[in-house]
Amino acid sequence: MRLLIVLVEPLYDGNVGSVARAMKNFGFSDLALVNPCEIGDFGLAMASHARDVLEGAAVYPGLRQALEQADLVVGTTGKRLEDARHHLSLHLRVPCLTPAGLAEKLQGKEGTVALLLGREDCGLNSDELALCDMLVSIPTSEEYPVMNLSHSAAVLFYELSKNGNEGMSNVEMAKGESLALLRDKAGLLLSEIAYPEHKVDFTLLMLRRILGRSELTEREARSLLGLINRVRWSLNREKARLETSSKKFL
Amino acid sequence: MRLLIVLVEPLYDGNVGSVARAMKNFGFSDLALVNPCEIGDFGLAMASHARDVLEGAAVYPGLRQALEQADLVVGTTGKRLEDARHHLSLHLRVPCLTPAGLAEKLQGKEGTVALLLGREDCGLNSDELALCDMLVSIPTSEEYPVMNLSHSAAVLFYELSKNGNEGMSNVEMAKGESLALLRDKAGLLLSEIAYPEHKVDFTLLMLRRILGRSELTEREARSLLGLINRVRWSLNREKARLETSSKKFL
Repeated sequence: MRLLIVLVEPLYDGNVGSVARAMKNFGFSDLALVNPCEIGDFGLAMASHARDVLEGAAVYPGLRQALEQADLVVGTTGKRLEDARHHLSLHLRVPCLTPAGLAEKLQGKEGTVALLLGREDCGLNSDELALCDMLVSIPTSEEYPVMNLSHSAAVLFYELSKNGNEGMSNVEMAKGESLALLRDKAGLLLSEIAYPEHKVDFTLLMLRRILGRSELTEREARSLLGLINRVRWSLNREKARLETSSKKFL
Repeated sequence: MRLLIVLVEPLYDGNVGSVARAMKNFGFSDLALVNPCEIGDFGLAMASHARDVLEGAAVYPGLRQALEQADLVVGTTGKRLEDARHHLSLHLRVPCLTPAGLAEKLQGKEGTVALLLGREDCGLNSDELALCDMLVSIPTSEEYPVMNLSHSAAVLFYELSKNGNEGMSNVEMAKGESLALLRDKAGLLLSEIAYPEHKVDFTLLMLRRILGRSELTEREARSLLGLINRVRWSLNREKARLETSSKKFL
């Protein structure tokens, strides 16, 4: 498994450098920066001996471009002091994995996993969270849950590097494109069954998260695609028959 | 168990502030500083909302005084780039615990445990390590093992606060009966779309496993049930219409 660390609009170069250092401490080297602040001397100083990781970072204007190479997208969320309301939103009512839970889920998997870390002041926004297949949250104190960005990063890297390469036969994880196709077909199915329009987005996101958490294999993704296609085909056949018979008799 | 965090001769106030913040993030508040650098504005800024922890820190001229209240002393060591020789010393040939191993050892214990974190440049010296009952070391990459002080602290606090807040955040897991209902309805759907009979059992088992691994919530189970019901209703409506129209015109 390849871990791609994606910093979304980081505000302070010191944090970017600190994250690069923590990456190298735990053996990770693929860093992507989405619309980042300027990286100056302080950023380089904080990277310390991980200057190579920082200087090798890919810079993207937007998140979607950064995620093109990812098979699975993991978003990080924290209980922010400022936005208790955000908590009640769509995204956070679904279960968040603990870092250890995430490490367990990713163990023995192949493919590219993007780990998204949001802005220092407000994290990832709703649109960004909607691109995530899984969410992870570090269990912190109720009194002061807001962690420093590079501290969160260090804790996550620590957990994700724990398993190392030990054990478990590798299973082919569902490809990003298969998951995307699955979401497309599910969307088409919802419209074909006249699913209430105001619930469509929520339901599609829920499906994405359920499938994300289930660590779908490529084989399972293909079977689910076959199943959805068959449901749609049955539905449309009945519709077509109805039309034919109507035409025949009218 | 009370955890006392002891910073031994920290050099930079930014790190001291960062450690205070990480402490509060994980619910710890007892900080002792042994012969520390001066704590200025940058230290206070890095402490952020944990200024109370920083300002409440006890300051000692030497380590022994700081440890008077400790029942058990845990030292932290890292594989330092600069001192490969230090490695072969008495203290480091004894097995070091991993952070998870330390957390396990301390679980359910009562008393005061002092966790010693050394200087940013050279850690704890031999005399200081000799005062420790246990040693803990964070497994890091061979290539760049030297972690930032507050990163090490965050990883240790994260592990030590794990006991007790394991598992998922408080979300109602799907009831067994909801999962059973989901499987029944999925079975009905498969027969309604004339799914190849020899594949039905396998596909139902695959669905069960996917949903099992995703640790479905009750809310999600209900939504999926609603979705399957709607698909079946759409299918059957088309069939019923077809029958009606056939009857009408035949």
